[in-house]
Amino acid sequence: MRPGFSRMAGSLMDSCIMELISVASAPGMVSFATGLPDRDLFDPEGIAEAASDVLSSDEARPSLQYGDALGFMPLREKISRRLRREAGLSVEPERIVLTNGSQECFDLLGKLFLDPGDGLAVENPGYLGALQSFSAYGPEYSGVDVGEGGPSMEGLRAALSKKPKMFYCIPNHQNPTGYSYGDDARKGVADLVDGSGMLLVEDDAYGELGHRGRAGKAISSMVDDAVLTGSFSKVVSPGLRVGWMALPEWAVPKASAMLEASCLQAGSFSQRVIDRFLEIRDYDAHLERQRKAYLAKKDRFLGLLSENMPPGVEWNDPSGGMFVWLRLPEGADADALCKAALRRKLVLMPGKPFHVRGGGNTIRLNYATPSPSETVCGMEALGLAAREIL
Amino acid sequence: MRPGFSRMAGSLMDSCIMELISVASAPGMVSFATGLPDRDLFDPEGIAEAASDVLSSDEARPSLQYGDALGFMPLREKISRRLRREAGLSVEPERIVLTNGSQECFDLLGKLFLDPGDGLAVENPGYLGALQSFSAYGPEYSGVDVGEGGPSMEGLRAALSKKPKMFYCIPNHQNPTGYSYGDDARKGVADLVDGSGMLLVEDDAYGELGHRGRAGKAISSMVDDAVLTGSFSKVVSPGLRVGWMALPEWAVPKASAMLEASCLQAGSFSQRVIDRFLEIRDYDAHLERQRKAYLAKKDRFLGLLSENMPPGVEWNDPSGGMFVWLRLPEGADADALCKAALRRKLVLMPGKPFHVRGGGNTIRLNYATPSPSETVCGMEALGLAAREIL
Repeated sequence: MRPGFSRMAGSLMDSCIMELISVASAPGMVSFATGLPDRDLFDPEGIAEAASDVLSSDEARPSLQYGDALGFMPLREKISRRLRREAGLSVEPERIVLTNGSQECFDLLGKLFLDPGDGLAVENPGYLGALQSFSAYGPEYSGVDVGEGGPSMEGLRAALSKKPKMFYCIPNHQNPTGYSYGDDARKGVADLVDGSGMLLVEDDAYGELGHRGRAGKAISSMVDDAVLTGSFSKVVSPGLRVGWMALPEWAVPKASAMLEASCLQAGSFSQRVIDRFLEIRDYDAHLERQRKAYLAKKDRFLGLLSENMPPGVEWNDPSGGMFVWLRLPEGADADALCKAALRRKLVLMPGKPFHVRGGGNTIRLNYATPSPSETVCGMEALGLAAREIL
Repeated sequence: MRPGFSRMAGSLMDSCIMELISVASAPGMVSFATGLPDRDLFDPEGIAEAASDVLSSDEARPSLQYGDALGFMPLREKISRRLRREAGLSVEPERIVLTNGSQECFDLLGKLFLDPGDGLAVENPGYLGALQSFSAYGPEYSGVDVGEGGPSMEGLRAALSKKPKMFYCIPNHQNPTGYSYGDDARKGVADLVDGSGMLLVEDDAYGELGHRGRAGKAISSMVDDAVLTGSFSKVVSPGLRVGWMALPEWAVPKASAMLEASCLQAGSFSQRVIDRFLEIRDYDAHLERQRKAYLAKKDRFLGLLSENMPPGVEWNDPSGGMFVWLRLPEGADADALCKAALRRKLVLMPGKPFHVRGGGNTIRLNYATPSPSETVCGMEALGLAAREIL
């Protein structure tokens, strides 16, 4: 007889993201499926220099020791300054908590705010990884349909009428669709959410990756009770696991105790390496290189989609981030396309798991990860697979 | 109106560990309170060399990228080999999951196995950090009294009769007491636990820090359904946040999905740095230096205790780890001693929070962190404070 799993373990969604990473890493496979940044855009020399600087400075031993539970203050100060300048968000460094990647923020926020059956408004479609985190806490989801430009305001009003605990959204270059909110939509969301007794959770993972700069001001800057989450995973390195959240002041003590209960603290060393990296590199120039490279990749990707896709298949032209959103004709089966593509050694991520409802005809395509030659190969496979099933 | 916290947030114990670290880091303070390793025993040069090697090798870009959700395989293989050789535990690397420090294991195990009201057998006293993790999941604790040599078998039998989901214990140089289980106690625990339908959670954080080698074989090696947790925090660096757990095969898929939901994965970079460190350094020699240094610190600490403590105060002579367990006369108030010490700029950790019941006359003393001069200063303050309150 074995010990039984908890109800939380039972309500856990199937592993999906890491499983895809695993399938996609098999030899000979091409993947448009994952959300990995382009490893050729990493700066290992810069990270090496930063690590070497930290370990030969007075910070060497502190970087290897336990430290401030909420994170290395100089890095929190840099994040605070940047948020003010770039996103229009005034948040003191004391309200910024560093985490093991921003995924950990969603787990901590679920733990802090969600009891089983509590309402949770989410974008439909929305980021699967966050849904996986939140699902452990047994929320009742209300899906708010999103399109290019923002969410359905009617949908958001309907969701808010159910008094959810939070509204979770990605206003910049959303995962999975690449959609961004326009200025009116940001203002509209802020007006509906502010003072409603609900927490806005604004995921800014792709905020720095607008091809031509930031898509808009943080909605959090217009709302009292808001959390903005961010990460160095997309723009510097996911392997260092440095994410963060900017919290309302009243939530910081509980968040700190929850982080301590979960993992004591995030990594002192990684935080100092990132902090030093930001000092020795021109971060704006670093970002500019990434933005240009991803824009070029996207243009090429869209060009190849046009060449290879049969009629009836549609997609968007995102202004940043890593994803293009593919829509098959209504009623067509995206799962069948994924299977047909896999037979041709192309791994795809169906859009349905990102949905609270619908989405059976959608696919998320990542244009950021594959190399140019992989993109050509993969696109040929995608075209043949689409012609096979349509 | 603000969004309300969850019941889990409500059941969270007050932050304690990180708060102490924060108080203790104020200028002029001496601390016997925390559980930090001695930073003078870190090897920043070795870590720097390891980091530089990783970032100039083929592993540079993979170390900065997302990777295997369960962790870098070569490191899991090294842990597997070492567990077999040192702890008598046969566990394939595929059953070893790398985490953000071993504290994260307790959170994941709580999430995986505990529903509110489920029984959880723990040592009394036991490690506060794990109790903080587990408490979020609302268990009913059964305390099993422990002393030098192991737990009360009668107490363990009584706890098991309540059909708990897990028994959590630290058989080697326990935090907070420094006690270790003898061979008979290990066998006795294994006999009681094996086949009982309960999970043994064996925390081996201090297993490598026996002053004269390992205190005994892993109990997990004698039990089918057991998890052994370990960490590089005490022997290499806590700031790198590399911990791990060795799981029964049937628990790996759920644990993997839970880790993904919590934080996607632990740090690819830190794992490779530790892995490389183990390759370029003689790890046994590294450990030997640590063991000797901690033994010398302990001997000195016990000598100063003898010189400074008034009659009626008792303590043990631990065979490893970082802690000495101080017992005031029955009925004396350890909190009063902590306050009297704090007025003399010495931070102490009372023993009561480690207890399910009792312990009001106990204090955990950390002899590993303070420098020689801090130890002299702190001991003088401790002696004066003890004379004041007794």
